Amino acid sequence: MIDLILLGTSGTIPLPGRPLSSVLGRVGPELILFDCGEGTQVSMRRWGWGFKGLSAICLSHMHGDHVSGLPGLLLSVANAGRVEPMDIYGPIGTRIVVAGLRVIAPRLPYEVRVHELTTSDGLDWNGTTIATLPVDHAIPCLAFRLDLARTRRFQPERARALGVPIEEWKLLQQGRSVTVDGRQVRPEDVLGPARRGIRFGYVTDTRPTSEMPEFLADSDLLVIEGTYGDPADAENAIANKHLLFSEAAEIARAARARQLWLTHFSAKLLEPAQYTLEAARIFPDTTIGQEGLTTSLRFDDEAAPTPSPGSTA
Amino acid sequence: MIDLILLGTSGTIPLPGRPLSSVLGRVGPELILFDCGEGTQVSMRRWGWGFKGLSAICLSHMHGDHVSGLPGLLLSVANAGRVEPMDIYGPIGTRIVVAGLRVIAPRLPYEVRVHELTTSDGLDWNGTTIATLPVDHAIPCLAFRLDLARTRRFQPERARALGVPIEEWKLLQQGRSVTVDGRQVRPEDVLGPARRGIRFGYVTDTRPTSEMPEFLADSDLLVIEGTYGDPADAENAIANKHLLFSEAAEIARAARARQLWLTHFSAKLLEPAQYTLEAARIFPDTTIGQEGLTTSLRFDDEAAPTPSPGSTA
Repeated sequence: MIDLILLGTSGTIPLPGRPLSSVLGRVGPELILFDCGEGTQVSMRRWGWGFKGLSAICLSHMHGDHVSGLPGLLLSVANAGRVEPMDIYGPIGTRIVVAGLRVIAPRLPYEVRVHELTTSDGLDWNGTTIATLPVDHAIPCLAFRLDLARTRRFQPERARALGVPIEEWKLLQQGRSVTVDGRQVRPEDVLGPARRGIRFGYVTDTRPTSEMPEFLADSDLLVIEGTYGDPADAENAIANKHLLFSEAAEIARAARARQLWLTHFSAKLLEPAQYTLEAARIFPDTTIGQEGLTTSLRFDDEAAPTPSPGSTA
Repeated sequence: MIDLILLGTSGTIPLPGRPLSSVLGRVGPELILFDCGEGTQVSMRRWGWGFKGLSAICLSHMHGDHVSGLPGLLLSVANAGRVEPMDIYGPIGTRIVVAGLRVIAPRLPYEVRVHELTTSDGLDWNGTTIATLPVDHAIPCLAFRLDLARTRRFQPERARALGVPIEEWKLLQQGRSVTVDGRQVRPEDVLGPARRGIRFGYVTDTRPTSEMPEFLADSDLLVIEGTYGDPADAENAIANKHLLFSEAAEIARAARARQLWLTHFSAKLLEPAQYTLEAARIFPDTTIGQEGLTTSLRFDDEAAPTPSPGSTA
């Protein structure tokens, strides 16, 4: 399961009641943050997911509204007692910006490891895989994807049919082959078909690109910037390298995603919801983001917990 | 007149509903900011005094909670259209911190001039004088004082008695001497007694020091940190170089100030008002600060404006 919360929805400028755009994810006890503008730590505190478990920060690009909250957040993570290393992922240029901002957070009780990325498919984080895709902004900018793979199901009836003694099932479950009466039995002989995992995609500060649909294919949730709602802002979207609501929705449709949350609204976009249909007519399961919007992405046959029955006394 | 607004009251950590401690001042169209933590620009936007007129930022010291909002604020001032220079005043170390934080605000449409100060009595800002006093914190830290001097009143009856022609009164009012029938008449011959000006003092992140009462003498308003309310925190106050409410009140009393606002509350101090009496028993005109607390400091015989009479139709 991946829990996700939108910590803010503002682009460029943090507004009263509309913090800068940022997403916090949780897998087990560990947290991963996507972008960290001025005030992101305040939203994190408001929603109560904690700071100590934050082990990865993914920065889309080095514009202030996406990184200005970094030194304060690093200090709050230190105050929360973290001593384990923290990984920061971002595009070329991340190292010098983190170093500059750390002028006010030079000494931390944990190691900060900065990784400058371009295209990457294979970063391990806490049992998930982080992938990145360069997108089209005024400066180097990355889209991020987080995949939680699902193991294939072990099928005891097949193990039994192949004569594997029950005490050797665990080896097969661990991915090792065993030998039965001189025949090799491989894990794939006793595992069921591949199962769909969980995929989350985060795209901000970009024009649409041709690589996006494949990179984001079949996502359970996409959080995509929609700086402008009004189609009349198309020229601004092109000039400033941002997206219209309709363009974000087209990306979600092309990627065959399940859900879309829009975020990173222009300060001039006072009521984003008035443009909901601009997106929903293209991609129906669109939600206009707001601070605190939360979901839990689950494997397909994992039911959401039901409330425990109350006392009937 | 000096208008002042408290933009936040939190020490160390910006909390939901309690922004970091900061004070904004206004003299005519120009603004002066005292400390700029993460989120200070959000409070500035909430209270609507604008950004373009911000011409001076006074930074008490280089801990993150007092400077982390600087790059975002500088960008917002740029967005508001400022092209005139901006002066930043702070202790030794300010230059390197501003340079580091400006990694995300490297190009601005106005000049940023950083001034590293120790003791200073004579900085001109917008018709006022900024003075600084080193205080006692873990790193170099300054208290600030803002003085708006008042001119002596021109007394026409004395000018008349000395035979100064009315067309030469203006020269005396401008501070120049004139000659009447071979005698010199100096400005002080026709000006009334010295008049009390307006004084504001800002003191944060320090233990009490012996120089404070004189430096802050006769202030109209003191904003002083009160990190701890409970007298049981006396050892923490000493160890962490902060003040108890009672110690802030003692400074205000010794300085014979007119009003005291407390700010910079520890995150553990959930209800600062419960310790009001700790300060008020020492200095009665104490106010527990809160975001948005505002006052206008006026010359003594300048009345506050009265509401204009409504239509009686």
